[in-house]
Amino acid sequence: MIFSTLGRIAIVLSVLLVIPAVLALSLGESSWWAIATTVGISLVIGLVLMLCIKPKDKVIFAKEGLIIVSLSWIYVSAIGALPFVISGAIPNYIDAFFEMCSGFSTTGATILTGDQIDAMYLVDKGLLFWRSFTHWIGGMGVIVFLMAFETGSSDRGMHILRAEMPGPIVDKIVPRARNTAKILYLLYIGFTVAEAIALIIVGACTKLPNGEMLSWGENIFDAVVHAFGTAGTGGFSVRGISIAYYGAAYQWIITVFMILFGINFNLYYLMLLRKFRQAFGSRELWIFIAIIVVSATALSINIATAVTDLPFRDNAHDVIRHSLFQVAAFISTTGYSSIPNGYNINNFPLLSLGILFLLMFIGGCAGSTGGGLKVSRVVILCKAVQKELRRVLHPRHANAVKFEGKIIADETLHGVTSYFGLYMLLLAATFIVLCFDGGTGLSVETNITAAVSCINNIGPAYGVAASGYYMYNWLSKIVMSFAMLIGRLEIYPILLMFSPTTWIKR
Amino acid sequence: MIFSTLGRIAIVLSVLLVIPAVLALSLGESSWWAIATTVGISLVIGLVLMLCIKPKDKVIFAKEGLIIVSLSWIYVSAIGALPFVISGAIPNYIDAFFEMCSGFSTTGATILTGDQIDAMYLVDKGLLFWRSFTHWIGGMGVIVFLMAFETGSSDRGMHILRAEMPGPIVDKIVPRARNTAKILYLLYIGFTVAEAIALIIVGACTKLPNGEMLSWGENIFDAVVHAFGTAGTGGFSVRGISIAYYGAAYQWIITVFMILFGINFNLYYLMLLRKFRQAFGSRELWIFIAIIVVSATALSINIATAVTDLPFRDNAHDVIRHSLFQVAAFISTTGYSSIPNGYNINNFPLLSLGILFLLMFIGGCAGSTGGGLKVSRVVILCKAVQKELRRVLHPRHANAVKFEGKIIADETLHGVTSYFGLYMLLLAATFIVLCFDGGTGLSVETNITAAVSCINNIGPAYGVAASGYYMYNWLSKIVMSFAMLIGRLEIYPILLMFSPTTWIKR
Repeated sequence: MIFSTLGRIAIVLSVLLVIPAVLALSLGESSWWAIATTVGISLVIGLVLMLCIKPKDKVIFAKEGLIIVSLSWIYVSAIGALPFVISGAIPNYIDAFFEMCSGFSTTGATILTGDQIDAMYLVDKGLLFWRSFTHWIGGMGVIVFLMAFETGSSDRGMHILRAEMPGPIVDKIVPRARNTAKILYLLYIGFTVAEAIALIIVGACTKLPNGEMLSWGENIFDAVVHAFGTAGTGGFSVRGISIAYYGAAYQWIITVFMILFGINFNLYYLMLLRKFRQAFGSRELWIFIAIIVVSATALSINIATAVTDLPFRDNAHDVIRHSLFQVAAFISTTGYSSIPNGYNINNFPLLSLGILFLLMFIGGCAGSTGGGLKVSRVVILCKAVQKELRRVLHPRHANAVKFEGKIIADETLHGVTSYFGLYMLLLAATFIVLCFDGGTGLSVETNITAAVSCINNIGPAYGVAASGYYMYNWLSKIVMSFAMLIGRLEIYPILLMFSPTTWIKR
Repeated sequence: MIFSTLGRIAIVLSVLLVIPAVLALSLGESSWWAIATTVGISLVIGLVLMLCIKPKDKVIFAKEGLIIVSLSWIYVSAIGALPFVISGAIPNYIDAFFEMCSGFSTTGATILTGDQIDAMYLVDKGLLFWRSFTHWIGGMGVIVFLMAFETGSSDRGMHILRAEMPGPIVDKIVPRARNTAKILYLLYIGFTVAEAIALIIVGACTKLPNGEMLSWGENIFDAVVHAFGTAGTGGFSVRGISIAYYGAAYQWIITVFMILFGINFNLYYLMLLRKFRQAFGSRELWIFIAIIVVSATALSINIATAVTDLPFRDNAHDVIRHSLFQVAAFISTTGYSSIPNGYNINNFPLLSLGILFLLMFIGGCAGSTGGGLKVSRVVILCKAVQKELRRVLHPRHANAVKFEGKIIADETLHGVTSYFGLYMLLLAATFIVLCFDGGTGLSVETNITAAVSCINNIGPAYGVAASGYYMYNWLSKIVMSFAMLIGRLEIYPILLMFSPTTWIKR
């Protein structure tokens, strides 16, 4: 059963890889054959798995669902890395695996330097397209994708959906999983297309900060890959200095869409059904927006008044734009950067760095493509704490806490607090492995922020890792790769993979 | 009722202050009158509170117990700071309040520079004695102290003991609160005396690293104050370079006692009762020791092999001694330093810094004078996570987790996970307030470690705060002062003080 599903995943992957292969071929890039070879490899693996191993039974339990999800994500990252290695664009396989885990988990952490990205832009657009495309695929979940467009029992998918969908509470629309997934996917596609079109229009009408205009081909290419990166809340850019390469209007559009993709997609679904009151009644939505407004205001004031050498600090509009961009990039866990060439996140004043660091933990809304703890989980954590405080004060009084108008079940409260404990333990474990690394310039601050960034699927970190993760050694990169997958799949699936009891038959 | 208890605390404080006043007077130090004035002030406050306000009823509920505890600790810190301000040793009241919160909470964070401490050693031994004495008082809890030596119903003290005793599980010996407190106090005094004697012997027999010998008076004074600092797991030293001022044997003794004071005192009590099997059967004890052994080994290897400019790295004995000293200082939350003059914690290699950072969170055993989360709470947190993982894998199987041979009640598990959530939220809040500070050299790393250090009652932090907390502004100092008290009292008492519902009559 597990192998048969994996086989289907392998075939889907090879189909998806055809797109960058065709793009590379049409642009006359030599890397097209590297992608084509990978298409062949994945096709063969898929056919072997599907034809040679017959499923014994068709029922998926929680355990099998979790195993399928983890194996699929590891598979697509492992095979998706091949084009980079075969073409020589990223010669080291571990680097390529890191890059793909970062892509599919929608993290956006890269081992490429800005110069390397700019060089690839000239000769390897096909590979760069694939790199960003993985964000888009990873955003909604490879398996939700599979389920949405295949025929079969919808019951079967439930456990998988539960494992792959972000957020602490499985929504009531889940039982109709297949239909819901289809609608959510159409919304996802719609938003991505809308963003790409908006970016194309801006790209066609305005000059770049360097005074040049994008050619038509480049304009469309850049718009599509950045739309992919925003939609999946990933953050890979095709430019060495990320979104700072483009003008103010371009940055505003990406800011707006980063926020939109950080919101629960079920709310858009409710709006489609004209249930506006229910959609705008979401507490999580307003808390998310409130955090953004407060943080962006604080950043703006901080940048304008603190001692800093950021070049845009004297222009009010620039300060607000960059502040909001950076806040949206961190809370939505996209991780794009609008910081001008020659500067990086380390040039931000202390308070801004502190706020952005805390935003890393919060992440987007449940049911969005954003990573992190999710706003609703943070709120429920606060409620659990509030309940415990009341219990300490009045041990014999009954007390219940509410969220979104409903009483939160004790099981949910305990689930969230235990999840948080596990999350912090994994963060500590990732951090300490990174400390074994003797990489140049690494510090406690760099390693803390790198661990937080990977597990929350953000991308950038502070210190030397602000310019990429190339200084880390192979062990750190492997651990961070799994940390990114763990973060994307909300811990349990990947962790159970490594538990010996998972593999014992009961 | 609350005021009458506070009145008693005030009188106890004034009695305790008589000791440094007499010391200062006998040494002919001018600050004796500053201490004597404070004795008078606290005596008057105490008498007014006790005589003018008659208690209406004698029953203490959970809420009143928590309020009494918080108010007492704030009171002793606020009044205990007066001698420093009146004598001019620490002219700024907020600095002195910080120093006293640090003292009573057994943190050991200081706003004094090394040079200032060395200067005070020459003319203000009375004040330095008081500074270290607060560690000793704070170690076992001012109120447990009060209870142990007063007559009265023992029921009454239960809620207070519960609030003031560290650790997640209130032990079964608590109902016999008054007697137990007395025995624990005698053990505490016994260990302190033993350490002081050991230090006096070493001080009398060996030369200091600078080649001199301590005079008899200095030797006894230093031994007593450092025994106070170790017993309370505080960390204030009377030397600018802390324990690095003394020789290897001196450091070894302090290392041993830091570890001993990090162990649950109930185990010593059990040993007194000859229940050795029960005492050595404590899982928490062995986990605590295992963490120390593993961490110290890792630090030793790391210091000996990594690129670092620490002067002692070529001598195996020195490396082991400093590693074990630093590990013991961090996990017991004492925070003494053995790092030679001219170097500080920032000279340690990355892995060592990472390990010490994580040890900050763990802290000592429950029922010890150590701060931090406590070993048993960390273990229970892991068990709660383990239980949740099993629940995800087998939703319908019953599963229970055990610690110390007993099944942990769900209430305890939820209590610990909620506590951890609250703890992390407070850590984040403290961190972000510190980020508002424009102090010289402050960084994200410094502020994270400073917040962690204060809330876990360690003392030292990384970055510029490695040499003290003088660069922070008044707001940061006040917030850190309360963070230290919050950490010492395990959050709830102080937090409830600030909750408006606490003050509403029901």
